[in-house]
Amino acid sequence: MKIAVDAMGGDYAPDVVVRGVIDAVREYKTEVILVGDETRIAPLLKKSCRGCDGISVQHSSEVIGMSESAASSVRRKRDSSIVVGVNLVKQGKADAFFSAGNTGAVVCAGTLGLGMLPGIERPGIGMVMPSLKDITLLIDVGANINPKPAQLLQYGIMADIYFRHILKRENPSIGLLNVGEEESKGTDFYKETRELFDKTSLNFIGNVEGKDIFSGKTDIIVCDGFVGNVVLKASESLAEMIQDLLKKHLLKNPLGFFGLLLLGSSLKSFKKKVDYSEYGGAPLLGVNGVVIIGHGRSNANAVKNAIRVARAEVENRFTDRILGAIGKS
Amino acid sequence: MKIAVDAMGGDYAPDVVVRGVIDAVREYKTEVILVGDETRIAPLLKKSCRGCDGISVQHSSEVIGMSESAASSVRRKRDSSIVVGVNLVKQGKADAFFSAGNTGAVVCAGTLGLGMLPGIERPGIGMVMPSLKDITLLIDVGANINPKPAQLLQYGIMADIYFRHILKRENPSIGLLNVGEEESKGTDFYKETRELFDKTSLNFIGNVEGKDIFSGKTDIIVCDGFVGNVVLKASESLAEMIQDLLKKHLLKNPLGFFGLLLLGSSLKSFKKKVDYSEYGGAPLLGVNGVVIIGHGRSNANAVKNAIRVARAEVENRFTDRILGAIGKS
Repeated sequence: MKIAVDAMGGDYAPDVVVRGVIDAVREYKTEVILVGDETRIAPLLKKSCRGCDGISVQHSSEVIGMSESAASSVRRKRDSSIVVGVNLVKQGKADAFFSAGNTGAVVCAGTLGLGMLPGIERPGIGMVMPSLKDITLLIDVGANINPKPAQLLQYGIMADIYFRHILKRENPSIGLLNVGEEESKGTDFYKETRELFDKTSLNFIGNVEGKDIFSGKTDIIVCDGFVGNVVLKASESLAEMIQDLLKKHLLKNPLGFFGLLLLGSSLKSFKKKVDYSEYGGAPLLGVNGVVIIGHGRSNANAVKNAIRVARAEVENRFTDRILGAIGKS
Repeated sequence: MKIAVDAMGGDYAPDVVVRGVIDAVREYKTEVILVGDETRIAPLLKKSCRGCDGISVQHSSEVIGMSESAASSVRRKRDSSIVVGVNLVKQGKADAFFSAGNTGAVVCAGTLGLGMLPGIERPGIGMVMPSLKDITLLIDVGANINPKPAQLLQYGIMADIYFRHILKRENPSIGLLNVGEEESKGTDFYKETRELFDKTSLNFIGNVEGKDIFSGKTDIIVCDGFVGNVVLKASESLAEMIQDLLKKHLLKNPLGFFGLLLLGSSLKSFKKKVDYSEYGGAPLLGVNGVVIIGHGRSNANAVKNAIRVARAEVENRFTDRILGAIGKS
């Protein structure tokens, strides 16, 4: 199996991407094609591993910046690492593509380059969040900010398959993100979406609220990409603020520093639980191929875990399973 | 000045409400009318204070439950503490009303009972959130889940006045919650709203993202009530999860307990910073009178602080200021 990885994507590229790839190749016995500026990638490979078996480089001369407009940059920069990486999948030279670069550009290049799976209307980004019980898969977190009810239903169907076959948990429950649990809650759009879910054989439990993303009430939460994007970014920022404030307040206390030392290992296991990098990247669901999107601040561990997720999607024939489910629905 | 307080509202009513009211009357020299079941309120007053000067009781025989449908319960339960409390303001017998009860019912009773301020189309709930720099006022967090652009503009105008005169900070900046900072981001609804803000003399800085609620990038963030409600509930839930997990992981460590003891005072000052109860209740902006909404889990401190906020709104002639600003806009 070969995974194409955008070596130029993310705030710490290409260094941390190359490090994550080296770790992944060692741990998962997967081949990786690093896509990007060969003159920058080659020295990093040379420095960090002897005979990096399984890693090859596909040179690309352009980079799409993190804040560039998605659609126009994908059209303009045909030799960017993102466009070249997607094309490797399209041409069958790679089985999957991972990028921690410009999310909008990955969505756009993935959709234009690979096309949608037959029957699927729009792509959606799924995001695994930690919850008090286990994990919650939130979909969509920003690919489709103005969806139709039928598109949210398709997100639910794809998330159900992702949860079973990639996250390996049985019979996942699905909730619809809303402002209250009662059937009457929400706009007409949400009422219509709820009715569509009610008619399926999915394990749909009805409306859930913002608090349920972290309470673990349900395994999958479906929402429109606008709300999903806002709530994801707010949550990340809040978790960081709490850690910052905690540290600041602890260090104000003369004994706080010793306290922090005492607590070192506990804090580490706590951080592992809330650390997004443990959960791998976010799958772009619905496109005709395996595409994983990483956080712009992905570290080497996040890159490694994203490659693990890409590998699992390919091994489990994830896109075939979606096709099967959509055909039946 | 007289503040009507819903003695039956909130998960720990009437006990904590009465305790918060006693503290507020002592600290702020405000008179309070406790609205609710006299047979339950009187013993609490008798037990906790001798000659509770400034506290009177207005009996009401009904209670609207936390999960009852807002509109129908307000129409049906004319002798509920929420409806009676709002009517005290309407009749000029109280200057403001506070309830930690059913939020939807308070919005509904406040809107029907007091009417809107002339020129204001819809009520909005403002919520003060802690940020890394200071505080952020998020509006609307759930009164209006399907607003028009002109209504979001009115929320911005009212929040600007609230920030200046109640929160006492000069020249507050205002951002529009969106999925990216660029002008082109968001749905047509958000683009139209942004254009309306651009034409005003408000200190409008453009689009902001979910992460900016806690980063302190701007003082006020305007959003539709659906997104605001989801992000508020998710944030509360995440903050609780982090505290729970932290405690759990600390106590797993044999030295963790001693660490917690060492850190006691630091954790207390940290909790004060992120504790919603310090920030008082959430103002219901736009209705023709002062109404403050409390969290269902309000403790005595939250009740006391909400009364402080209600008092500040009355003292600063908050509704008159809105009328002046709307007339000018």
